[in-house]
Amino acid sequence: MSAERKTKKTDLPERIDAANAYALEMLFSVEPVLEGVQKALDVVPGMTPSTVLHAGPPISWRRMCDPMKRAVRGALIFEGLAKDSSEAEKMILEDRIILSPNHHYDCVGPMTGIISASMPVVVTKDLTTGKKAYSTFNEGGGQALWFGSFGEETLRRLRWIRDKFAPVMKKVFASAEPISVWNILSQGIQMGDECHNRHGACTNIFLKNIVEPLFSLKISRANAMDVYRFMSANSHFFLNFTMTGCKLATDAAHDIVDSTLVTAMSRNGTVFGIRVSGLGNRWFVAKSPYLEDALYNLGYGPKDAAPDIGDSSIIETMGLGGFAIAAAPSMASFAGGGFSDAVGITNSMNLITAAKNPKFAIPSLDFQGTPTGIDIRKVVDTAILPSINSAIVHKSSGAGQIGAGIAKAPYECFEKALLAFGKRHDLAA
Amino acid sequence: MSAERKTKKTDLPERIDAANAYALEMLFSVEPVLEGVQKALDVVPGMTPSTVLHAGPPISWRRMCDPMKRAVRGALIFEGLAKDSSEAEKMILEDRIILSPNHHYDCVGPMTGIISASMPVVVTKDLTTGKKAYSTFNEGGGQALWFGSFGEETLRRLRWIRDKFAPVMKKVFASAEPISVWNILSQGIQMGDECHNRHGACTNIFLKNIVEPLFSLKISRANAMDVYRFMSANSHFFLNFTMTGCKLATDAAHDIVDSTLVTAMSRNGTVFGIRVSGLGNRWFVAKSPYLEDALYNLGYGPKDAAPDIGDSSIIETMGLGGFAIAAAPSMASFAGGGFSDAVGITNSMNLITAAKNPKFAIPSLDFQGTPTGIDIRKVVDTAILPSINSAIVHKSSGAGQIGAGIAKAPYECFEKALLAFGKRHDLAA
Repeated sequence: MSAERKTKKTDLPERIDAANAYALEMLFSVEPVLEGVQKALDVVPGMTPSTVLHAGPPISWRRMCDPMKRAVRGALIFEGLAKDSSEAEKMILEDRIILSPNHHYDCVGPMTGIISASMPVVVTKDLTTGKKAYSTFNEGGGQALWFGSFGEETLRRLRWIRDKFAPVMKKVFASAEPISVWNILSQGIQMGDECHNRHGACTNIFLKNIVEPLFSLKISRANAMDVYRFMSANSHFFLNFTMTGCKLATDAAHDIVDSTLVTAMSRNGTVFGIRVSGLGNRWFVAKSPYLEDALYNLGYGPKDAAPDIGDSSIIETMGLGGFAIAAAPSMASFAGGGFSDAVGITNSMNLITAAKNPKFAIPSLDFQGTPTGIDIRKVVDTAILPSINSAIVHKSSGAGQIGAGIAKAPYECFEKALLAFGKRHDLAA
Repeated sequence: MSAERKTKKTDLPERIDAANAYALEMLFSVEPVLEGVQKALDVVPGMTPSTVLHAGPPISWRRMCDPMKRAVRGALIFEGLAKDSSEAEKMILEDRIILSPNHHYDCVGPMTGIISASMPVVVTKDLTTGKKAYSTFNEGGGQALWFGSFGEETLRRLRWIRDKFAPVMKKVFASAEPISVWNILSQGIQMGDECHNRHGACTNIFLKNIVEPLFSLKISRANAMDVYRFMSANSHFFLNFTMTGCKLATDAAHDIVDSTLVTAMSRNGTVFGIRVSGLGNRWFVAKSPYLEDALYNLGYGPKDAAPDIGDSSIIETMGLGGFAIAAAPSMASFAGGGFSDAVGITNSMNLITAAKNPKFAIPSLDFQGTPTGIDIRKVVDTAILPSINSAIVHKSSGAGQIGAGIAKAPYECFEKALLAFGKRHDLAA
């Protein structure tokens, strides 16, 4: 081994620290604002009429979980590409449909996360770099595509969102002051939202921001009221915007050579995958976990649950949600714990992260920032797993959401990533 | 001393406990809802065209603090009873004006708390007993009567509230579902409001409740928008409704023979007074304190401050505000403390109260209820003083609000009340 190589090895920890610091600087520099509403086909780079985007790492049709399959078939019917479920299935099996992860298309979606060509998407723009990310509007509860449920009611709602709701919201965004995602999240954290499973305060603040532009539009009041009602009835309405903001931030920290920070965590209901800043676009995957602590709707239990699913863990990648649970102890009580358990989770997330985000101050921790920048080295060293506040969908019946709780990211993803990182740097495992 | 008298004395602690338990039962049974909007003269029992109601215990004009005097003169000009400040003063000195505490007229008002005959008041009704309480709409910041400030802008705003805002809100309340005060407060407590100095979450929830009825009214959109803007610009808009709800509840606990619970705490900027359930309508007063821990606006300091003022301490009498500060640690940090100080205050309030209110669950204390039912015996025994989250007005310049912080109720009030209680029961001091 040459002297040069030795020096290089000795310097690596410092180089990693510098790279991680730089990655965090990039992440913290992002200023996402909600810019407008467009048809996915018109703005999502690479989108085609026969593309269906989904949550999580890449996955073949064969290996997709049942809820995601239902949502994909539903999207094809919604798009008018298939007249029914069996025709949809046939098209997929004949490879006439492009199935691809949202993350590969600058998109994110909660749960099944389906985005198809004619769906309206909200464009979130990073004021610092000008980069954009896209998400659908949150559909709300019940028979909804994001919960892997599809029927007449789902279709009716998706059409209403596309044909009635989105055109109005497009005008709202055009006339409103730019809505800062961080501004709303930083207030939400002061108001009991951890900004993943609790979004009620954020949604209220968002509503407060748009009531004036919405009711000032030259449209009928009944029309404006329908739009308002749809949003105000869904305390998770802001969820998708939180996700695009977090994606823009974590993407800004991506592709920093030597950085060991996680820039995406995502699940498709079959596998859980992570991406690491210094390791390119490769996903390090493991079987998607079942939720460990969860509360089920009446009549449902662990045997009914699909494994963890959705791009929404981009929120934890950004240090919110499960990482900020001390700001929303109701989420811990939900999973059978109390306030000290919530604080315990946030504190343990501090042990696997590189920084605290001063924008998001947790009141009950003396306004300590949220733990941000998951370091694969720390996860592997401590075996403390990222804690994700998540929802649960039925594994096979199409019943949609059946519960909610806490999932733990699989150790294997971080171990694989660290091995790849070591290999790249010629280190022994 | 007769045997009978002896038995009576021995039983007193049990009788007090039973009376206090009953008083709390009455307090917890109250279900306040916002019922409607009326002119004060039409609904406030005993109101006359020349009555001006004010915060705190009774006080003569001569002893009133400067901010309250300004607000009283302002109200007389607003009513058209006086053309200017000196004419107003003259009328008062000639005893042509009835000055009386809000509390004696089923009313409450924050800070100076002025209510005059033509002012619109919100009627809050207890669904359990049918009893009603009244408050004005919160005026918002700046040159406002409640802050002891009066000028052209104050007058303009009061007229707009009376002539434009209130008629619309009257229609809103007439068409809206009844708005439950507790429902909003119980959500607010989960969202970082202690429901006195932090009312942002409660106000957002209130707004969410009334957007639909407001924008469905057959009035011009510009009109509806002006009304909406006025409310949404003031994070304290819900404060006055919290106060009427608390007054209905504490009044329900009043006049229970043998009860040692405090049923009102109020200040007029000169004296601080309390009422005790078993001691009738007498106020036990002491000099109104200056705020101990406070944050002043730029350019102002303790030497500029008027003593503590307002009926808003009815909120602490009900176990919210300072008593619930652990739910809003930002209020403690505001006064130079941190989360543990906030928890410390709430815990110490548990030492002087008789119960925990299950309706208002503090998330960071594992959803423990707010400390409710101040017992004068416990205050005197422990010398722990009720902690009140308060605002500060200028003592003499009419500048209005100059800061906010924490005030402590004077020990003397509780000592005097306990002596009176002892005297009534023939006990030695």
